[in-house]
Amino acid sequence: MGPSGAYEPTGRTVPARSRERASYDRALVHAILDEGYVCHLGFVRDGAPVVLPTLYARDGERLFVHGSTGSRPLREAGRAEAGLPVCLTVTHVDGLVLARSAFHHSVNYRSVVVHGAARQVTDPAERAAALSALVDHVLPGRSADSRPANGRELAATAVLCLDLAEVSAKLRAGGPNDDPEDLALPYWSGVLPVAPAYGTPVPADDLAPGIPVPGYLTRR
Amino acid sequence: MGPSGAYEPTGRTVPARSRERASYDRALVHAILDEGYVCHLGFVRDGAPVVLPTLYARDGERLFVHGSTGSRPLREAGRAEAGLPVCLTVTHVDGLVLARSAFHHSVNYRSVVVHGAARQVTDPAERAAALSALVDHVLPGRSADSRPANGRELAATAVLCLDLAEVSAKLRAGGPNDDPEDLALPYWSGVLPVAPAYGTPVPADDLAPGIPVPGYLTRR
Repeated sequence: MGPSGAYEPTGRTVPARSRERASYDRALVHAILDEGYVCHLGFVRDGAPVVLPTLYARDGERLFVHGSTGSRPLREAGRAEAGLPVCLTVTHVDGLVLARSAFHHSVNYRSVVVHGAARQVTDPAERAAALSALVDHVLPGRSADSRPANGRELAATAVLCLDLAEVSAKLRAGGPNDDPEDLALPYWSGVLPVAPAYGTPVPADDLAPGIPVPGYLTRR
Repeated sequence: MGPSGAYEPTGRTVPARSRERASYDRALVHAILDEGYVCHLGFVRDGAPVVLPTLYARDGERLFVHGSTGSRPLREAGRAEAGLPVCLTVTHVDGLVLARSAFHHSVNYRSVVVHGAARQVTDPAERAAALSALVDHVLPGRSADSRPANGRELAATAVLCLDLAEVSAKLRAGGPNDDPEDLALPYWSGVLPVAPAYGTPVPADDLAPGIPVPGYLTRR
């Protein structure tokens, strides 16, 4: 960790290009992580890369991911004493950037890339807390409004923990960067904003009568 | 390639668990790929995994990704004679699944995972076609409504190609799968739908007057 407000850049968190888009600001990294809930987790199996989507949660300077005790990355992290080397990436797409030139088309986005070794969380209380954090990361307040995991369920769930130490954010914002000689071309140019939108909650077929839609769903 | 309608499963495209969620159906794989435009590309650097978000396009049974000739994965794919081993993953989140139990909370999603060796596209005409495909994959019709890349721009752009051969889809749909003994619990249960939403196009500050918003933007 560098100064309190920033992560220390390392060889693999300084990009080879577009360095002006990289940031090590801790508050920015936290904000990007807290806005999402699906990450893409990369690890190496038999020398080849594997990238799988999975849910994550942040607890201070740690991330949690979870899965069945039978899933491959979780089994492999359990076997490796030093943890499983992973790269965990979270990306938000904010807009499509239309330039006059095909070359300058781009996407406005905010991403965070975390490198490190994921370790199994073995302490039962810590694992239970991580599972609640995973539910609340998606829908704040939901874990208290559901039945907590019991012993059998906790035993079937593996939780991995990854420190926020070697981490960077990268982002692009704003309009197109066309070359000056292209500005008069007769092509529409600008940004089409994109954001996730939440629809009307669909109750389960067998929902018991008289249970209202909770506020944490309608506020999204 | 297996029978015309399906990809041949391999050791790394058959999941260790939740096999009922995996599919090798070619039409389904194509549909999931065609609905998105940002993938997460994984590769191995110095023995550790790296996962970066990037744009992609599909052309039949091939995917293209592109980047600066200075970017790391593209440089490494250029150096490796047999191509760069990659894992390219595309994920759409369709809904948050709220069960009565914290344990059965889930996400409705559709994902595609492609394993293979990414090769540099060196033929200039093929590279130009790939760049148009990348623009049109995000916004169909846009490449014809922009200035095509010139020689200098093409020279600065590296394009990687990845065959759709070792590929699988995985998906979850539908409502929560609560245990029977939990059905009467007093917690709301169901699905909160999620989908990307496109806002009102924002013209560039320096957009020449009299250029209307193109139809391919307002139809999204």
